[in-house]
Amino acid sequence: MASLSCSADDLAQLLGPNTTNPTAAAAYLCSQFSTISDKFTDTAYAVDSTYLLFSAYLVFSMQLGFAMLCAGSVRAKNTMNIMLTNVLDAAAGGLFYYLFGFAFAFGTPSNGFIGRHFFGLKDVPTQSFDYSSFLYQWAFAIAAAGITSGSIAERTQFVAYLIYSSFLTGFVYPVVSHWFWSTDGWASAFNTDNLLLGSGVIDFAGSGVVHMVGGIAGLWGALIEGPRIGRFDHSGRSVMLRGHSASLVVLGTFLLWFGWYGFNPGSFTKILSPYSSGSYYGQWSAVGRTAVTTTLAGSTAALTTLFSKRILSGHWNVTDVCNGLLGGFAAITAGCSVVEPWAAIICGFVAAVVLISCNRLADKLKFDDPLEAAQLHGGCGAWGIIFTALFAKEKYVNEVYPGKPGRPYGLFMGGGGKLLVAHVIQILVIVGWVSATMGPLFFALHKLKLLRISAEDEMAGMDMTRHGGFAYIYHDDDDDLQKPGIQLRKIEPRATTPTSV
Amino acid sequence: MASLSCSADDLAQLLGPNTTNPTAAAAYLCSQFSTISDKFTDTAYAVDSTYLLFSAYLVFSMQLGFAMLCAGSVRAKNTMNIMLTNVLDAAAGGLFYYLFGFAFAFGTPSNGFIGRHFFGLKDVPTQSFDYSSFLYQWAFAIAAAGITSGSIAERTQFVAYLIYSSFLTGFVYPVVSHWFWSTDGWASAFNTDNLLLGSGVIDFAGSGVVHMVGGIAGLWGALIEGPRIGRFDHSGRSVMLRGHSASLVVLGTFLLWFGWYGFNPGSFTKILSPYSSGSYYGQWSAVGRTAVTTTLAGSTAALTTLFSKRILSGHWNVTDVCNGLLGGFAAITAGCSVVEPWAAIICGFVAAVVLISCNRLADKLKFDDPLEAAQLHGGCGAWGIIFTALFAKEKYVNEVYPGKPGRPYGLFMGGGGKLLVAHVIQILVIVGWVSATMGPLFFALHKLKLLRISAEDEMAGMDMTRHGGFAYIYHDDDDDLQKPGIQLRKIEPRATTPTSV
Amino acid sequence: MASLSCSADDLAQLLGPNTTNPTAAAAYLCSQFSTISDKFTDTAYAVDSTYLLFSAYLVFSMQLGFAMLCAGSVRAKNTMNIMLTNVLDAAAGGLFYYLFGFAFAFGTPSNGFIGRHFFGLKDVPTQSFDYSSFLYQWAFAIAAAGITSGSIAERTQFVAYLIYSSFLTGFVYPVVSHWFWSTDGWASAFNTDNLLLGSGVIDFAGSGVVHMVGGIAGLWGALIEGPRIGRFDHSGRSVMLRGHSASLVVLGTFLLWFGWYGFNPGSFTKILSPYSSGSYYGQWSAVGRTAVTTTLAGSTAALTTLFSKRILSGHWNVTDVCNGLLGGFAAITAGCSVVEPWAAIICGFVAAVVLISCNRLADKLKFDDPLEAAQLHGGCGAWGIIFTALFAKEKYVNEVYPGKPGRPYGLFMGGGGKLLVAHVIQILVIVGWVSATMGPLFFALHKLKLLRISAEDEMAGMDMTRHGGFAYIYHDDDDDLQKPGIQLRKIEPRATTPTSV
Repeated sequence: MASLSCSADDLAQLLGPNTTNPTAAAAYLCSQFSTISDKFTDTAYAVDSTYLLFSAYLVFSMQLGFAMLCAGSVRAKNTMNIMLTNVLDAAAGGLFYYLFGFAFAFGTPSNGFIGRHFFGLKDVPTQSFDYSSFLYQWAFAIAAAGITSGSIAERTQFVAYLIYSSFLTGFVYPVVSHWFWSTDGWASAFNTDNLLLGSGVIDFAGSGVVHMVGGIAGLWGALIEGPRIGRFDHSGRSVMLRGHSASLVVLGTFLLWFGWYGFNPGSFTKILSPYSSGSYYGQWSAVGRTAVTTTLAGSTAALTTLFSKRILSGHWNVTDVCNGLLGGFAAITAGCSVVEPWAAIICGFVAAVVLISCNRLADKLKFDDPLEAAQLHGGCGAWGIIFTALFAKEKYVNEVYPGKPGRPYGLFMGGGGKLLVAHVIQILVIVGWVSATMGPLFFALHKLKLLRISAEDEMAGMDMTRHGGFAYIYHDDDDDLQKPGIQLRKIEPRATTPTSV
Repeated sequence: MASLSCSADDLAQLLGPNTTNPTAAAAYLCSQFSTISDKFTDTAYAVDSTYLLFSAYLVFSMQLGFAMLCAGSVRAKNTMNIMLTNVLDAAAGGLFYYLFGFAFAFGTPSNGFIGRHFFGLKDVPTQSFDYSSFLYQWAFAIAAAGITSGSIAERTQFVAYLIYSSFLTGFVYPVVSHWFWSTDGWASAFNTDNLLLGSGVIDFAGSGVVHMVGGIAGLWGALIEGPRIGRFDHSGRSVMLRGHSASLVVLGTFLLWFGWYGFNPGSFTKILSPYSSGSYYGQWSAVGRTAVTTTLAGSTAALTTLFSKRILSGHWNVTDVCNGLLGGFAAITAGCSVVEPWAAIICGFVAAVVLISCNRLADKLKFDDPLEAAQLHGGCGAWGIIFTALFAKEKYVNEVYPGKPGRPYGLFMGGGGKLLVAHVIQILVIVGWVSATMGPLFFALHKLKLLRISAEDEMAGMDMTRHGGFAYIYHDDDDDLQKPGIQLRKIEPRATTPTSV
Repeated sequence: MASLSCSADDLAQLLGPNTTNPTAAAAYLCSQFSTISDKFTDTAYAVDSTYLLFSAYLVFSMQLGFAMLCAGSVRAKNTMNIMLTNVLDAAAGGLFYYLFGFAFAFGTPSNGFIGRHFFGLKDVPTQSFDYSSFLYQWAFAIAAAGITSGSIAERTQFVAYLIYSSFLTGFVYPVVSHWFWSTDGWASAFNTDNLLLGSGVIDFAGSGVVHMVGGIAGLWGALIEGPRIGRFDHSGRSVMLRGHSASLVVLGTFLLWFGWYGFNPGSFTKILSPYSSGSYYGQWSAVGRTAVTTTLAGSTAALTTLFSKRILSGHWNVTDVCNGLLGGFAAITAGCSVVEPWAAIICGFVAAVVLISCNRLADKLKFDDPLEAAQLHGGCGAWGIIFTALFAKEKYVNEVYPGKPGRPYGLFMGGGGKLLVAHVIQILVIVGWVSATMGPLFFALHKLKLLRISAEDEMAGMDMTRHGGFAYIYHDDDDDLQKPGIQLRKIEPRATTPTSV
């Protein structure tokens, strides 16, 4: 904000000696301005905190979206398993991110690679980090773990899940976010002292930091586990193992859409920042524009998928459209704040094509990812990073990342190739880091026989064997209540008794 | 807001020549006030944008509500079809409303009938329209299309859906919103230069603009398509075709309730507007009051429906109560900001009666609307418009629609009949316009054999024939995994009994 | 806020007689400051109203959460029944709380026991209560009734439900909230004139006022009704009657988590309150901290439950984890604003243990509460009250409850035992009051044969006998459409084909 500074000395001189008590008059007036200045400070903190907290709540609602999307996309027999992993992402993530994740990610000053302050929220709040910052970043951290859980669904031991999820939320992801988002991160666009290639990486809300990290982690998990039984038949043809509830898929997708308005526009973290005080155009406009680019990218990707799939498969498929939509969102996430709305349409269109291509490739390679998470978050996330380097607009880049004028911007917008190089580096670094950490972890779990469940358990479903029963009971055997004891086992709805109705 | 204007000339004169440098002292002080004034401007934009954006997110969540309500209200075999239409309302609506819908609706200056600026958000933001305005209005536009999809559920070709939805969101609805909501609209209460009957139409959040438009469009669609097979038996008696999931109906209804707090109170679009600066009573109070009237109207309608249906049908019916609730909301939407809370109770009570009556009439006329959308949004929407003309309170009307004192207000509140006449005109005009546009469209689709699906497809369900399979698979035939290849066709859960479908 | 007060007299004297018109100059300047002061007032009202309204919407979304949690936790045959009660909690609660509940709860001045102003929102808004306050408190009131409905699920007559729910929302709960939350309440920490034990009760968001009230009411209801048929077998062993949908349970739990961010941080009701103007640390920080303590308590309780149940029952149970999570939330609700994040972890850990113990006790005593509501909201709520008295931090207590320095605070934090005594009194008083009102009510309904449904109805399920049909129809018998009339009864999905599995 334009500063409000009243100098009592200056003012006293202007009033001059003929004034009865110029010093006191000036002090009197300046103290009023000082009070006013303080009140503006208070107001800005309150408004920005309100904005950030409610954005955090929206991002948190994405966890519910993931849970429902995942549940609907797996077979009924593994519903409780996948939902439990989603609940635990949030809960275990809360503890781990509190204890050290947030410190690794945002503890400054740092060496540029990993933070080392704020463990257990020690010394929070500071001028730059309030509790609301932690809450917002926690909601992001658990999203990354949620993505990965989709890739390895329906065949992973629960204990393996607990291990990799804690490791990802507590260490792998925070380190990446430190690199690209902390003011001290070696590749951060906020690190104005020392910008990588004079540019840093513009990954505004995390196509790379969140989506690629989750997607690449899922890629390694799914690769090492191998496909689910029956996913490819004896002659190697792909066999669809359809999810058990399209309603849950749509519910989850819409909730993710809803929550993405916290994810992308919320990443400004402040809304009361004028670009030029007194004007109708300020950060609030950029926030709104970000919501619009997000909407347009997702919408375009959904429509592109609808018609592509109609041509390719002959029917109008709602779950494919949902995935296409999410692919558009994952892609626009990096550049959402620095591109024009029309560019978002291009972003969404290509994202849909990328997702379809990745899925075809996965099928060819007999790669099985029940949620298409590696393809969607990894593939479309990578595209989003490239897209930003092509379409970032000079004006928006300088407004959103102030304090360092003359930055490189999008190649197609006349900003040269530096940003593109930086962004290619980001992709390579993320692939490298996540592969180097999560790959060995999944491999070790595999070797220790902790990763994949037995074929028997997989056929029966994890809910029956590990989680206490089938997720649904639409038919109540009231007649059987006379035979108690048997109840606890009779959880499969239509099991053996043909006369049960 | 009360203006903060410091005149350096005036102040310099007051300080006078004995002050050492009166001009500089005055300029110094006035520049402080100018800075302060700018900061207030910034603050107001940030606060109002926060308010509007989060309201827009809430309105968007209604789309999820519609999806779940519609899904639960149709038979299981058409679940994917109806959910796909809901996803597409949002996605296609995003593109079309961006390209031209918003321009038709709010492009000013205009001739009063249709806007012609802001195509593709060109020249946005302006002083009056920021990106957040677009987002908010887009969320409204897709709601209208969502209403209509309910009326024609379970029997409409998907391609017909794509056509009418684009036409409605991109043209029919934007034009109506221009008439009643744009500052240039010929019947808008904001058009202070030239108020229709000295009053304009007070349709605050759109009982007419949104609900009647969606409802009347649905009426024509459902009328031209005719009832679903089996909806009326050979002797002409009404046969209930119950929806497949009451849980989804309740989920959808609650989400709509939740989102309505964005729809009605959010329609103020600004919250930081004092009615008299420095007082505890301001637009924030009116916003809160609007949330209260909305709550009371819906609550009353729900209770009225509960007891009426208990008397009429002999049981306590949750889906009827949900519809009653929504009828109350649709009715209060026009007048929510300008009536007293007690009046909202009357509004809700009558809305429930209107809905029950419309449903009885529909049954008599063998009109089949699976979601009761024409009755609910058309019927209760029309009642809401009349209600506003009867109960609008003078004080509130002048606060909510400032700049033109002495407006007509509610007939029963002593405000004369002018508002009522204007509102009757609104009803007639909306019925006329929507009938003149959507009627021929549906009729043309009908003649071109593009509207209704075949009887065979209708019996089998659209999900199986058009959308790639049944929405639910609660029973996994794991034994059959040995016989791959067959999987892709085995999408009906209990496939082995040929007589069961 | 620091006050902005300009005295024109003082300023005129400082400018002195040599100034041309010192009085006018001073008045001119002071009127500017007065305008500024008014604008800050407006801003604060707008920001705080925005904060409170959106918090209210979040709390309202908990009603949806309850509906889904309850629905998923009961057997399919009672789904519509329980969902209808949840819809009606909100709707009937809206009317009753408007008519008298809010007046009983917050009508000041009062005798300390029951309020007697604001009936039908008369004289609202005032300086202290705007419409948004009513909306926020209404959302709380309906939560209490929602808790109780879980305890008596699957066996209660609908008419009994209507009676107790109105009584609870309209009278029992408002009186309790008056005691502990009104500025005039005899045990309120806001009653700075006359603090109980010099301390009052710190039940910030209502572990006692909301959760214990709902839980104890449920305890009496469930006790008087007795367990569901089949819940304990002939030899007295506990038989699990599993809920019909784990997906709905998880959906509901996540929605409650989402909404709890309105419940706990929202209970500040204002966010634009500096603790020391001009500093980054203010009420916005306390709001954020409250969101963090809430998150950590729930997360810890969820993890504790996960591992405890794994050890006790041998499997990883998602519904138990959900209940544990909610127990953590119910417990932290009292002290969320006045404890450190690390203390919230202790709170959550113990809450999980309390819930498991209460459930074991309930099993021993053959107490049947389908949602564990009495154990969870009653038991963990009581623990939360004690916890607050042990861990409330001096600094936070004085910031959150200003105007009376030197208050007692947590025993373990060096604040002495006074707060603990006050909190034990709160527990006793709530148990006493709710038992004395709801106990006789349930007993009278029982004696009048209005409480429990018949054994036949219970076996058949209430949806079939009272609510017009089964909640789900996954299988459409289209063949049977030729035989109309029969449709209305054919609501059980797999009726005629016994071999259909």
